[in-house]
Amino acid sequence: MSSPLKLGIAGLGTVGIGLINIFNRHGDIIEAKAGRSIQIKAVSARNKATDRGADLSSYEWFDDAAEMAVSPTIDVFVEMIGGEDGIAYDSVVAALKAGKHVVTANKALLAHHGAELAALAEEHNVALNYEAAVAGGIPIVKTMRESLTGNEVSRVYGILNGTCNYILTLMEQEGRPFADILKDAQDQGYAEADPTTDIGGFDAAHKLALLTSLSFGTQVSFKDVFIEGIESISSEDIAAAGELGYRIKLLGIAQKTESGIEQRVHPAMVPAHSPIGEVGGVTNCVAVNGDFVGDVMLVGPGAGAGPTASSVMGDLIDIARDLVVPPFINPFKDLKPYTKAKMRAHEGGYYIRLDVVDQIGVLAAIATHMAEQKISLKSIVQKQDGNIAQKEGATIVMITHDTMEQAVRDALSAIEKDGHLVGKPQMIRIERL
Amino acid sequence: MSSPLKLGIAGLGTVGIGLINIFNRHGDIIEAKAGRSIQIKAVSARNKATDRGADLSSYEWFDDAAEMAVSPTIDVFVEMIGGEDGIAYDSVVAALKAGKHVVTANKALLAHHGAELAALAEEHNVALNYEAAVAGGIPIVKTMRESLTGNEVSRVYGILNGTCNYILTLMEQEGRPFADILKDAQDQGYAEADPTTDIGGFDAAHKLALLTSLSFGTQVSFKDVFIEGIESISSEDIAAAGELGYRIKLLGIAQKTESGIEQRVHPAMVPAHSPIGEVGGVTNCVAVNGDFVGDVMLVGPGAGAGPTASSVMGDLIDIARDLVVPPFINPFKDLKPYTKAKMRAHEGGYYIRLDVVDQIGVLAAIATHMAEQKISLKSIVQKQDGNIAQKEGATIVMITHDTMEQAVRDALSAIEKDGHLVGKPQMIRIERL
Repeated sequence: MSSPLKLGIAGLGTVGIGLINIFNRHGDIIEAKAGRSIQIKAVSARNKATDRGADLSSYEWFDDAAEMAVSPTIDVFVEMIGGEDGIAYDSVVAALKAGKHVVTANKALLAHHGAELAALAEEHNVALNYEAAVAGGIPIVKTMRESLTGNEVSRVYGILNGTCNYILTLMEQEGRPFADILKDAQDQGYAEADPTTDIGGFDAAHKLALLTSLSFGTQVSFKDVFIEGIESISSEDIAAAGELGYRIKLLGIAQKTESGIEQRVHPAMVPAHSPIGEVGGVTNCVAVNGDFVGDVMLVGPGAGAGPTASSVMGDLIDIARDLVVPPFINPFKDLKPYTKAKMRAHEGGYYIRLDVVDQIGVLAAIATHMAEQKISLKSIVQKQDGNIAQKEGATIVMITHDTMEQAVRDALSAIEKDGHLVGKPQMIRIERL
Repeated sequence: MSSPLKLGIAGLGTVGIGLINIFNRHGDIIEAKAGRSIQIKAVSARNKATDRGADLSSYEWFDDAAEMAVSPTIDVFVEMIGGEDGIAYDSVVAALKAGKHVVTANKALLAHHGAELAALAEEHNVALNYEAAVAGGIPIVKTMRESLTGNEVSRVYGILNGTCNYILTLMEQEGRPFADILKDAQDQGYAEADPTTDIGGFDAAHKLALLTSLSFGTQVSFKDVFIEGIESISSEDIAAAGELGYRIKLLGIAQKTESGIEQRVHPAMVPAHSPIGEVGGVTNCVAVNGDFVGDVMLVGPGAGAGPTASSVMGDLIDIARDLVVPPFINPFKDLKPYTKAKMRAHEGGYYIRLDVVDQIGVLAAIATHMAEQKISLKSIVQKQDGNIAQKEGATIVMITHDTMEQAVRDALSAIEKDGHLVGKPQMIRIERL
């Protein structure tokens, strides 16, 4: 029997404690599968005195995670601290340099410093595993790093943020506006007090940047992700989507185009009755198209203590079994530079909603601007149903045939200049999946 | 750079040739990911003269797969022959005994001989990889063997046969009877000339037996799988399911119960608008419930040359990377004996369709038999719409509340004895997912 694998866990929030719980409950099945015992030896957090509802007395305590990271007590540094810089970054770098394996759930850290950390891990022949960082309990990192490796990938996309999906699902089911549902979600703990990272699309973008690298063998490039959040989605948009047979989802999409790789996070319309359309609530999903396998989709919980602990445990058992692969599929030196495709060159169908003042000639002016940009309309509907609070007005909803994003932006900009709009125009991409 | 990994491919049907195609197209990306080159060195099939549309001249030819299996030319024996016994079995045993890694897509072989082959693989410290054997291109074997390893699994289930799912999907979409659609499927190559293995549920049962072992750490026990095929599903059942908000799918389900592990393959009603309900056509899916991760579902192509080659390639790259794990998660000696739960003890809701002769008192007699078995009905509908060809008759459709399968079987048996039925009673389990 091999010697035990010794862990140090940094960060004792719900996720760190969830990991300790999985060891307490399943120590036997973990050892059977790993072929050796896996033991927590040390823990670290800011405040030792906090009552965390778990007995930590048998573990060595470190006030400083970076000190634990290099301690001879441990073989694996488990980073559950969070944040793209600061102590999380410092301690992970220290651990890798000291030749410790690292397991982390920290998508922000990897999205910003993935290249540097991968190079360090390979230089020191250790694992940098992060299954929990992308779509929580869904085993998509392993699927990309180890299962679909014989494929050339053309597209990867998914519902990568549970908070957004929960809000959009409830907006549809309850017919209530965004702000109401967000407040409820915050009260119930499904959204943070400062929800910007989630609803602004940044959390999904962190995950997408990692998926892009895993799918296309390119260097991680978070700064090149086009990001739109869900703040502007109105009850009218949700209802209009339903009438058209769509649902609105916040998607992260990376795909090959002639000019490079698109990376985009934005609300999109997907067919309501399709596997991805039926992914509701806090559930996440990731779909991949590979040239040999075709379309594969994974669905599951995107966050939470249990799913995160499940993914971290899979990563740890891999290390115990000596299964170590390059962090981003290919050895770091073989990763290609990321070549950005411009969003303006994106091509697809568009849903456009314009709230307009009700004057003769407005519809004609709008139609003219669309025609000037050679945008072909699939449908156009004007409703006089008082969607616009306190105003005499109308709502115009247009669906375009495939067109270039630049053309839509130019048309909307010209329409805005005419001064007939109430508020900003709404534009939601229709995703052909 | 490590030395090349040398393959021998036995069986050169569409799947074997698909594998050669993936090497020809992606040799470079495969080498980059594997960290070494993977080379086909030898091939074997029954008839060398057959034109297979691929250039095989650079590979050593073996008429006898078992001879290739032990040849010093190869490190990995890739078995694409098929069949549970005969040359597939003989050559795989020979390869393992000779210390060669084995990769196979052969579910029948593993369902019948998995225990013996796993023991041999472990004894000789080689891989026995079979990602393509369960749900084609879907990476469920790796997910169970390596990703969800920290979980205790309570249930695994899925749509495991593309032919059946294709037939059921078309019966719904086109409103045509089973025999018609089956004939079309045969003409189009989606069903075999002898379709028994698929439509009788045996292929799904092979895959389920493997999933059960992977999920519960038990020995493979194909003989204990309860199997019902889709032959008895009528257009009336499909229509009734639709009216109730369900779709009929052939499911394979393994779940823990108090008396052991249920393994069952049968048509089941699932919510039409749910992720699994929306899996149509030849697509497969597998869902797992783990105590930490919750519910995870994987969706993708269940068969075909490309998806199979993709899975085989993932298995080969694992071997090239020296990632070798026990074939059924736990080392063979640690696998628990399989304890069978009796189907008669299965508990759930049931859809029952009875075609009856139209006489006074028939409905009362049926209701009485159900009451005698203490079966509580959620709904009962009698239709006088001439579903029964050439007969004066009626169709009675009942939905039960949760009940024991034994009670339903006893009630139906008593109803049959009364002699009011035209044909056999139909019973379809309603699956709560």
